[in-house]
Amino acid sequence: MKPEEMILVSIDDHIVEPADMFDSHVPAKWKDQAPKLLTGSNGVQAWQLENQVAGAIGMNAVVGWPKEEWGFDPTSLAEMRPGAYDVHERVRDMNVNGILGSMNFPSFVGFANNFLNGLENKELALALTQAYNDWHIDEWCAAYPDRFIPLAIPPVWDPKAIADEVRRTARKGVRAITMPELPHVMGHPSYHDMDYWKPFFDAVCDEGVVMCLHIGGGFGAISNAPDAPIDNLIILATQVSSMAAQDLLWGPAFHQYPDLKVAWSEAGIGWIPFYLDRCDRHYTNQRWLGHDFGDKLPSEIFKEHSLACYVTDPSALKLRDDIGIDVIAWECDYPHSDSIWPNAPEFVHTELVNAGCSDAEIDKITWENSCRFFGWDPFASRSREDATVGALRAQATDVDTSLMSKSEWRARYEAAAS
Amino acid sequence: MKPEEMILVSIDDHIVEPADMFDSHVPAKWKDQAPKLLTGSNGVQAWQLENQVAGAIGMNAVVGWPKEEWGFDPTSLAEMRPGAYDVHERVRDMNVNGILGSMNFPSFVGFANNFLNGLENKELALALTQAYNDWHIDEWCAAYPDRFIPLAIPPVWDPKAIADEVRRTARKGVRAITMPELPHVMGHPSYHDMDYWKPFFDAVCDEGVVMCLHIGGGFGAISNAPDAPIDNLIILATQVSSMAAQDLLWGPAFHQYPDLKVAWSEAGIGWIPFYLDRCDRHYTNQRWLGHDFGDKLPSEIFKEHSLACYVTDPSALKLRDDIGIDVIAWECDYPHSDSIWPNAPEFVHTELVNAGCSDAEIDKITWENSCRFFGWDPFASRSREDATVGALRAQATDVDTSLMSKSEWRARYEAAAS
Repeated sequence: MKPEEMILVSIDDHIVEPADMFDSHVPAKWKDQAPKLLTGSNGVQAWQLENQVAGAIGMNAVVGWPKEEWGFDPTSLAEMRPGAYDVHERVRDMNVNGILGSMNFPSFVGFANNFLNGLENKELALALTQAYNDWHIDEWCAAYPDRFIPLAIPPVWDPKAIADEVRRTARKGVRAITMPELPHVMGHPSYHDMDYWKPFFDAVCDEGVVMCLHIGGGFGAISNAPDAPIDNLIILATQVSSMAAQDLLWGPAFHQYPDLKVAWSEAGIGWIPFYLDRCDRHYTNQRWLGHDFGDKLPSEIFKEHSLACYVTDPSALKLRDDIGIDVIAWECDYPHSDSIWPNAPEFVHTELVNAGCSDAEIDKITWENSCRFFGWDPFASRSREDATVGALRAQATDVDTSLMSKSEWRARYEAAAS
Repeated sequence: MKPEEMILVSIDDHIVEPADMFDSHVPAKWKDQAPKLLTGSNGVQAWQLENQVAGAIGMNAVVGWPKEEWGFDPTSLAEMRPGAYDVHERVRDMNVNGILGSMNFPSFVGFANNFLNGLENKELALALTQAYNDWHIDEWCAAYPDRFIPLAIPPVWDPKAIADEVRRTARKGVRAITMPELPHVMGHPSYHDMDYWKPFFDAVCDEGVVMCLHIGGGFGAISNAPDAPIDNLIILATQVSSMAAQDLLWGPAFHQYPDLKVAWSEAGIGWIPFYLDRCDRHYTNQRWLGHDFGDKLPSEIFKEHSLACYVTDPSALKLRDDIGIDVIAWECDYPHSDSIWPNAPEFVHTELVNAGCSDAEIDKITWENSCRFFGWDPFASRSREDATVGALRAQATDVDTSLMSKSEWRARYEAAAS
């Protein structure tokens, strides 16, 4: 298989929410209280809601910038590559990168809807959550239904409300919901508390909706050195995935819900063989602790429930048989600094070939596993031949992929607006 | 190579300190104030010092017990296999397990001398630390100098005092010092603070003494779910090693001290390829963060400083070339529940052969790497032929390895005492 013959479905990318996203979706009662994207005198934009201000409208949305301008800093839509917030430009950027399908996580509300979680008026918070999801489903994804796998955000403060939202959005085509890695870090009961989380687990299992645990949300579970550099955040964020896995695998959830499906979004895959070896050794060796996995090993149970998502993991791919070849799925992470754009096909192909993957294994990792796990048919409206990297790139010959500084992006943005 | 032809040097085992350990080593001034091993009315023993009581005299020292009796519970010397606290019995247990050499970590004082760290009278705490080390070096290790690699505990509250103790004990043959994984979790400055830790780093580099970071000490850096089972502690303890690595590799220590040597004790090895891939990708991709490793990758620098110690890690051994074949060292963890006794040779051999290791690779992992790293000559007083598993086991044909209940051990102990 050559890079242009691959099919790429990325199950973790990010939307930077556009300014008008709430306009058509907030009930009249709450219209005036929807979050607003305000621009400060310094040109920095931020979403504001009551007394809350979101930290960054497009955290780390650096795609298209030269590296010396990269940062976590909040900025404005004007300075970003439009594919970050404009769905038509997004699809063009997917085409030029050979990406057929994509699942898009939120930006300013946080991976577990942390922003609305902080709102005191829970009726308003729920209405805005639903508005967010309606915008995501009915505008963003609906513009190109054959290119996006819809993902909901949860009213995370109320498991019954989450369950209702899972069922409501599932009827509209949602295939996944983004949930906190470690809810106790947000001040909610942990996933060990099955009385509390029962409505949520019931709903996702009934509806076949995947629970996505994106790295970053649970980072507060690590007490870093007070003088540690910001590198710690990026390098160690994946360590939290094993903590989250621990709560689901060694708590009651995986046992009580055999159909529960969890995507370890951007978690990487290298932690898994080490973690599973340790689980199996611990289970078979330390029987005095009384845990009972029945006739299976914890590693088998983990694999039955999991999709492990990585951007780049060259060493770990060599252990694909230990991880489970049906468990691994590639992701792009556009438009963040860890994303691979616009040369994902060549990068991914090289890494998979260097790890010794066969063509069949490449297909599993780049699209088959994720399409099966999320129940998304990539060929619903196009043939396989029209879904390849080469076919998509042929539609994107006019996409300019050159790097431009923030100020150049801003100049273009302002020219287009005037 | 057959199991009986292997040479095994274990660089992480544990002493359960005997009751008389302070008798000959505390200066007259402090004689009455040394910790005392007291027995409660329930038969449970605990070390007491002023108002402090150590949690367990032999945490998890379960070797020789049937599995249904395993536990973390504090118990008494009477119920343990005598190899836990009696050096002569220890060497017999090493012989029957084919172990030539061993480094022994403390029990009741904690891996970073946490117990004495809590003492207000720092002059007394220092005297007791020195007494501990003198006992370890002059009694325990000196009884069989060809079988033990001496390891010091630090007066961890004062880097200048640690430095003095490193130099003092190095003159007496000490090759390593056990330090906190994450000192900020103990309330001390982190390893990023080079002004604070300079005396310590100077001393270990001057003396060629290895800094051992044993898992468990930094576990408090993880905010577990309040209702998580105890399994979390055992399974996730190794996740802290990457946090500790982060502070040394991405902080100034490895850069400022090219001779600094760190043993990742009981950390396992599976976290390393994943961690190093992520470090290298982060470094080469996220240059905006400004870190400068000169003409090397962070993975290269990590390997120059590290000895990675594992008990069992079947998947990760297949990535030995990514970890570094000169970086990996096996350990036994006697007498804890994770230890492999008395069949370590067969267990280790099977795991290494299954991973495809050559004889030369087996030698590196089972003894060469650790002997080089700690500067310990395993053949100083015996030939290689007399150092093999087979040769040692031939001296231990009378060692009874059958499992016995706590009550049986107690009956034997009391019979021997009377």
